[in-house]
Amino acid sequence: MRINELKPILGKKRSDAAVFYNSDSSKINANMLYFSGYKGLGALVIPKKHAPFLIVPEMEMQRAKKSMVKKVYSMNKKRFFESIYKIARKNRLNTKNIAIDKSSFTLNSYRHFRNQFKKIKSKDIAFECLKLRETKTEKEIRILKKSCAYADKILQKAIKNFRHFKTESQAAAFLEYEAKKLGLELSFSPIVASGSNGSMPHHEPSNVKIKNDFCVIDFGVKYKGYCSDITRTIYVGKPSEKEKEMYNMLLKIQENAIIQIKSGKKCSEIYDFVVKSLGKYRNYFTHGLGHGVGIEIHELPNLSLSSKDRIKNNMVFTIEPGIYFPKRFGIRIEDTLLFKNKPVLLTKTSKDLLII
Amino acid sequence: MRINELKPILGKKRSDAAVFYNSDSSKINANMLYFSGYKGLGALVIPKKHAPFLIVPEMEMQRAKKSMVKKVYSMNKKRFFESIYKIARKNRLNTKNIAIDKSSFTLNSYRHFRNQFKKIKSKDIAFECLKLRETKTEKEIRILKKSCAYADKILQKAIKNFRHFKTESQAAAFLEYEAKKLGLELSFSPIVASGSNGSMPHHEPSNVKIKNDFCVIDFGVKYKGYCSDITRTIYVGKPSEKEKEMYNMLLKIQENAIIQIKSGKKCSEIYDFVVKSLGKYRNYFTHGLGHGVGIEIHELPNLSLSSKDRIKNNMVFTIEPGIYFPKRFGIRIEDTLLFKNKPVLLTKTSKDLLII
Repeated sequence: MRINELKPILGKKRSDAAVFYNSDSSKINANMLYFSGYKGLGALVIPKKHAPFLIVPEMEMQRAKKSMVKKVYSMNKKRFFESIYKIARKNRLNTKNIAIDKSSFTLNSYRHFRNQFKKIKSKDIAFECLKLRETKTEKEIRILKKSCAYADKILQKAIKNFRHFKTESQAAAFLEYEAKKLGLELSFSPIVASGSNGSMPHHEPSNVKIKNDFCVIDFGVKYKGYCSDITRTIYVGKPSEKEKEMYNMLLKIQENAIIQIKSGKKCSEIYDFVVKSLGKYRNYFTHGLGHGVGIEIHELPNLSLSSKDRIKNNMVFTIEPGIYFPKRFGIRIEDTLLFKNKPVLLTKTSKDLLII
Repeated sequence: MRINELKPILGKKRSDAAVFYNSDSSKINANMLYFSGYKGLGALVIPKKHAPFLIVPEMEMQRAKKSMVKKVYSMNKKRFFESIYKIARKNRLNTKNIAIDKSSFTLNSYRHFRNQFKKIKSKDIAFECLKLRETKTEKEIRILKKSCAYADKILQKAIKNFRHFKTESQAAAFLEYEAKKLGLELSFSPIVASGSNGSMPHHEPSNVKIKNDFCVIDFGVKYKGYCSDITRTIYVGKPSEKEKEMYNMLLKIQENAIIQIKSGKKCSEIYDFVVKSLGKYRNYFTHGLGHGVGIEIHELPNLSLSSKDRIKNNMVFTIEPGIYFPKRFGIRIEDTLLFKNKPVLLTKTSKDLLII
């Protein structure tokens, strides 16, 4: 966690402190978690010149004290920003120049915030935080490797048991159960999309029978707060030659895309390479080629046509081309990989077409 | 779904349309889902005088077409608000007076929004939307009853199997698995908190052994998009007389709190009743008494000291007093109930102290 790397950013933004908050216990503020290790209700204040502190409701005090932040104060949840202001003042914080994440700060929260921090000149550090999180530390990489290894292991177990699943829901339930038994969270709700459902990239598994057709399985776990992400498309039944060809074409493109990854290369170029390789099928590839993976399942870099990002050492991201034929079927093949002088696959499950 | 009830609100706010958006596929915009049945990426526009329409990325077109909204347009995800603006103009929408949910609109999204909707006079309808969702329609009540019945069924099955669970994680995994097998989502990650972990109301289940002690189990599913919420505290091993007394005291308070619920009654009064009943233990009750339940797990009404809400017909909410002794143990007993002339329990699992 790089609280010290935030300090020069505060200097550059002429801010005396950064304030992150989470006012909804069913959500997570990724930056608060990144800088403090705490993900419950409350606020994290990082002064430029002093130690950071957390301000949390009484019910969260014990959880907060288990975080990396030493100073923890109790707040009145109903007077959320008033509590933060008072404790900031008590800590002799200059409350005028404050840096905030404007991509997570809502308009109404900001109104309450400004009612307290009256003469505030807020500066946005949303992008700077994303950029900090874009390249991973050695410790984060170790955790991400483990997260991907768990995803591999559970996915393989599910594929091995696949003939026992009657419905998409059962397969998805199995994936979740195996993760939870190991004390892992999920990166996102697993996607199990059989046949024509596979043509919807974000299909939600339902109580429908798994057909004799392609089946897209998109899955990832969270290990120590860090995500993994892998997709395999298997075939239930007997694929036609044409279907096998289609799969192998996409697989070749996915593998070639990975070969394209080089230090300093524009992510948009890699995306463009895939679109060109798809030829006449290009219009059936309806989403980005990949995304960074970390505390959040979607981070920088962004591998799409409009991306300004370039490949750098210690980035962890996905490569996931797909083709989707509406009402017919979909195929997607996705790996999470690390770039360290060269691309290193973190997800390692075989990509040969598995026929069940 | 009450798109028609939103229209008089637009009139009152002198707005020509409401715009809701979701720019993060890992999140849900509850109001967009409520009014359209669609929960993916994109925007929902509800003009005061015309039919609503959705604007979604190409990859989400099929999902959107399955929603309740007939008109669906394709957007360029990278030019999110520009796409919305252009399609709004094509639909001859007056783009000056627009109502938005300022509790979910972020500062950065608003900046992009305003770059397109240049002379916008935005009005906040966050509170009005919450108020619409506070009382449920007959159809919603039917769904919520079913959601609670599922939560009961799965919780009871878990309790029956409890002696087989070695760790909190295993018990939590079982709850999730049973939900997923039935094609249900979760309202939130289940809480299974044994012994001293139970003193943290939001404890996350971990790979620790279930102790001979109290164990708090807080669980709920989503059925057709609607949440349920139930907590039972069981005892593993042999409780002391003092522990039994403590449990029965809290149970009596929970039951008496339910008796307090009457039409027009202030929610803060019911909260106050519980605090007074707790007597010397009042400081160990560190959260609100309850919350509305619907599409989101936390909705109106809010049953806390500072709440201005009053009990009304067709509200669905929880009653969940708890006592938490730091580093020792916690007890919480929670039901979801409907108010219809009188309180009607929707969760029905026995509340007698279960000793395993």
